[in-house]
Parts: sequence; structure tokens; C-alpha cells
Amino acid sequence: MAQNIYDDPGFFDGYSRLPRQTEGLAGAPEWPTVRAMLPDLSGKRVLDLGCGFGWASRHMREAGAAAVLGIDLSERMLARAAADTGDHAITYRRADLETLELPSASADFAYSSLAFHYVADFSRLARMLHGALTPGGGLLFTIEHPIYMAADRPDWLVDRAGNKVWPVARYADEGERRTDWLAPGVVKHHRTMATTLNTLVDAGFSIRRIAEFAPSPETVAATPALAEERERPMLLTVAATR
Amino acid sequence: MAQNIYDDPGFFDGYSRLPRQTEGLAGAPEWPTVRAMLPDLSGKRVLDLGCGFGWASRHMREAGAAAVLGIDLSERMLARAAADTGDHAITYRRADLETLELPSASADFAYSSLAFHYVADFSRLARMLHGALTPGGGLLFTIEHPIYMAADRPDWLVDRAGNKVWPVARYADEGERRTDWLAPGVVKHHRTMATTLNTLVDAGFSIRRIAEFAPSPETVAATPALAEERERPMLLTVAATR
Repeated sequence: MAQNIYDDPGFFDGYSRLPRQTEGLAGAPEWPTVRAMLPDLSGKRVLDLGCGFGWASRHMREAGAAAVLGIDLSERMLARAAADTGDHAITYRRADLETLELPSASADFAYSSLAFHYVADFSRLARMLHGALTPGGGLLFTIEHPIYMAADRPDWLVDRAGNKVWPVARYADEGERRTDWLAPGVVKHHRTMATTLNTLVDAGFSIRRIAEFAPSPETVAATPALAEERERPMLLTVAATR
Repeated sequence: MAQNIYDDPGFFDGYSRLPRQTEGLAGAPEWPTVRAMLPDLSGKRVLDLGCGFGWASRHMREAGAAAVLGIDLSERMLARAAADTGDHAITYRRADLETLELPSASADFAYSSLAFHYVADFSRLARMLHGALTPGGGLLFTIEHPIYMAADRPDWLVDRAGNKVWPVARYADEGERRTDWLAPGVVKHHRTMATTLNTLVDAGFSIRRIAEFAPSPETVAATPALAEERERPMLLTVAATR
């Protein structure tokens, strides 16, 4: 079973105060990039895997989805997600992505934001999703980038002149990484870029598009704190077709 | 036109003494990984783009290719490649990958080792190759990994305890990188992983397999100097289908 850190009171409290939770999708710098990779959702049955407070579930419903099934491991997240919508076409369900099973061809599109790096067995998940999607269906997910996750101490190295570099180490050593983020000992699973993409291909998906979010020079000019996001990618987004 | 550093006498001299040139493919640690990604070459018309001394051209001919066309920008490399084979089914031609044009559907498989990162316009090259390959044809190439190439100073950072990390910086800033390797000012072109893969998809290719070479723990035990190759990937290999 995946670690349920999101129901840890301290973690939940800190997480709830992140801009991407207080402001929703507008508080996520990568959202315009990800939104541009969404297919036409009109009339589609959509999955939101690791839905959290349901920001994306609500967006996809507003974008025309016929029905959205939001799935998360955290009871606290799901309770707020349910409280934040009265739309009966959005259903929330508590489940672990490590063991989730869905009916064959029961969805037309699967979305996931920053959840799959908590899953140890990505191969099982990819194969299950391939079965759960209709032919021609889409999968779009964002994870922490392997460049960001590989090292045991994921933090900038800064020289005396203020130049920043991001340390990469242990890239080929896949598996658990424990970091202190909002709470001590948050467990994530590092996979190389090759493993992530090959696992999708092996499950039967076609790779359609990759994004490694970086703010544009114009965005950096407006929000200088984002400059470091051009030095190394923090997020990897993959769009694939069943 | 691409920089023709391989015809620089000092560069050529140093390059000729690298293990992968004195020992051939056996001197390239990634070769077993790459060889395992080669398709059945029996009867196929094969391209070797950036063929150098022709090690891979000769291997592919021995593996059953009907004909091999080796292409390189360096006169010195091609002169030795020609001197090293008497096989008339291997042809060498001098051309710049930046401007090379090949007849439509004239090849069944295109191979390239460590040459595409010298090409500024990868999109043009990918589209040209898509046209030059027969339907179902394959493309397999190895380039320096963007993790390896991104920073201006591509070298290990080592702490007092001897721990190594690889610096990543300027990842989103694609374009020219100048490094001193065998000669000063060698010009390469950094592209993100997303750009490399999306360019192939946009040209009409399907991504079949990715490899980020790392020696196995057993190989490291036998050759401890290779341990650092598990810390960060130096090479990216992509197999795609037309």
C-alpha cells in the first residue's frame, strides 16, 4: 500500500496552504502547459487519479466531460473535494493507485497530476489503465521529473557568485526516495525517463507528447522567483494514446 | 554547416586514441545496450549517420545488411573507414547532416552513434530521415544525454567525502554549448528530452524504446571506473519506427 502522507495532520495542513491549493489550478505554474495538452473532453468519461481537492476534476467537468471519477488515497482530501462540488457527474472514490482496478473500457481519458511518483509499481498501473481506457483514449500525467528526484538531497548547490546548479546523482538507482517535504520521510519512487516511457510503450500506449515544464523568459521577467525552474525541470508531463 | 572538428589534426589525433576507436565497438561501454536495440538487419539497406571509422557500418554489414551507406563530415574519418574495408556493399559518402538529403524510401534502417548532438536543426534531419526510410523502417540513435550536456561546465562536483553529483543548469535554454574536449571550443547543440522526442513524433515517428546507458552493478564491480556512469546518464539512445 502506498504511504498515505496526505492524511498526516501536519502534512495536510502545510499542503492545504500551498498556492496550488489555495488558488487552485491558477496557482500551479505548469497548468497552462498541461491544459494545452488536454484533449477535447466533450462527452467523455474521465478519470482524475490522485484528485486531491478536485480542482482538475471540476475543471474537466466544466470543459465538457460527461462524468469525472476522482480517485485519491486521502480521506481528508476527498472530504474537501466532495464538499467543494454539488455536481453529481463528479464522483469521488477512495482507492490506492497501487492496487486500484477499474472496469475494462470504462473511461475515455485518464488524467493525473503529481501522483504517479508515489506509486511503486508503475507497470501494473499502466497496464491497468490501458485496460480501463477505450481504444483511442488518452492518458495525460505529470510527475516529479527524474532529474529532480534522483539525488538523495534534492536541493540547489549555489556557488559564492550565486550561480545555481541542480545535483543529479543515483539516477540509475531506481526505487524509493525519502524526502522531508511538509512532513519528514515522504516516500516517492524514482524511475528513469527510459523506464517511465518504456513502461507505457510496453503497456500498449503510444507516446504522443512530452513536456518538461519551464517558465517562459516573459514569465520569469514577471515572476523572477521562477527563474530557477529554467535551470532544471521539476516536472515531467507525458501524453500518451491507448 | 556543422563544425568539422573531427578534421582538426589535434582533435583527430586524440579521438583516434579513445578506446572506442582503438578497440572499436568493444571499447564502447554502451554498445551491448545499443546492439540489443538493433532490429534484424537481414537484407536491409542501412544508413550509418556520422559513421566515423566505420565500426558500426562493418558490424551492420556482418549482421546481414544488404548495403550500408556511411555518412560523415570528416574527410580523415572517411579515408580511414574506406581503408578499413574491402566490402563493396559498404559505401562511404562525405556529407553534412545539417543539409544532407536522401532519396525517398531509399533505406530500411537508419543508425547514428553520437552525431546528432552536433546538428543544430534536428527537426529538418528527422523529417528528412522519415522521408528517406521505408514504411515500418527503423531509426536508432545515441546522443549525449541532455542531463550531461545542459550545464556550461559539464563536470562532476565532488564533496570532501568524495561524493559526486552531476550539475544540471540551463536545461530549458536550448542551443549551442561549447566545451573543450580533445580540442577547445567543440560545438554541440543541447535539446531537452521533450524536444528530442516531440521532434521525432512531429516528423511522423513512433517512439519504440528509450535507453539511458548505465553499467550494471556487475559491470561496475568488474570495472570500478564506470561507477560514476550510474550517477547520471551520459548517453541517450532512442529507437523509433517510421
